[in-house]
Amino acid sequence: MKTACKESLRSTCPVNFGVEVFGDRWSLLIIRDIVFSGKKTYGEFMKSAEGIATNVLASRLAFLEQQGILSRAPSPSDRRKDFYTLTERGLDLIPILLSIIMWSAEHDTTSSVRPPKELLARLKRSPMEVSDEVKALVRDGGSVFPKAVQ
Amino acid sequence: MKTACKESLRSTCPVNFGVEVFGDRWSLLIIRDIVFSGKKTYGEFMKSAEGIATNVLASRLAFLEQQGILSRAPSPSDRRKDFYTLTERGLDLIPILLSIIMWSAEHDTTSSVRPPKELLARLKRSPMEVSDEVKALVRDGGSVFPKAVQ
Repeated sequence: MKTACKESLRSTCPVNFGVEVFGDRWSLLIIRDIVFSGKKTYGEFMKSAEGIATNVLASRLAFLEQQGILSRAPSPSDRRKDFYTLTERGLDLIPILLSIIMWSAEHDTTSSVRPPKELLARLKRSPMEVSDEVKALVRDGGSVFPKAVQ
Repeated sequence: MKTACKESLRSTCPVNFGVEVFGDRWSLLIIRDIVFSGKKTYGEFMKSAEGIATNVLASRLAFLEQQGILSRAPSPSDRRKDFYTLTERGLDLIPILLSIIMWSAEHDTTSSVRPPKELLARLKRSPMEVSDEVKALVRDGGSVFPKAVQ
C-alpha cells in the first residue's frame, strides 16, 4: 500500500490531485471516469491520463465488482466487450468524489484544469442537491462531461 | 499501491470500512484519529485498531507533513515528543471524512459501530454546517469524541 511521494502529479485532474495527496487513487479514478466522462469499457479506462497499468486496472475492476460498487454486463452492440456501470452503492460514492473535488479546487495550486466556477459555487451552497442531480444523471447512463470520453 | 482484497476488515470503524473498500487508507485513518479521537502523537496513532506498521506510520506522517496537511511541533510538556495537528489545508479534508462516514453508515452492513443517528441526520440535512462545526472544534484543539483517545 504505497503512496507515491513525488513532485509531479500524474495528471492535472483535481480528483487525481486529491487522492495523490492523501491516498491510493486507482479505484476512485475509475469511478471518476464513469461519473464525469461516461467511460464504460476496459479500453476507455486504459486511456485515462494517469496511465493505469493493465494488471492494476484489471484487479481494481474485479475488486470494485466484488465489492458491489461496479456492475459488469456485456455491451449490447459487441458482446465480447464488457460495460462497467455504477451500482446504487457505487453511485452513493458521488458525494465523496464531489467533496474531493471541492478540496482540490481550494488547495491545488498546480493544476491548470479547474472545475467550472458555477459548479463549485452550487456545491458549496447545496452539496447534497448537486450530488443527487449527478447521481440521477449517471444512473440514467449520462455523465457530467459526456464529450470527455476518449 | 495495493488494495487488500479480503473478507475481514481490519476494524469496525466506518471510515476504515469506506477506504478499505475503495482505496488506500492509512493517511485518512491518521486524519480520522486527529479529528475524532484527538490523537496527536506517534504513540497514539500506533495504538489505533487497524494496526499500522511503524515504518508505514512514519512515512505517512512525513508525507502528510510534506504535503502541508499536518503540522509538527514539539509537545509543550515533553519536548522529545512531537505533536501532529491538522493545518487549515488538513482541516479542509473534514468534509471528505464526513462524506465517507455517511457512505459507510449507509452501506456497511458488517460493522457493529455506527455513528450517532442524530449526527447522520444532521449531516444529511446540512453537511457543510456540520463540517464547519467539526473544523472549528478541531482547530481549537478539540475532537468529536475526545474520550476515545487510547
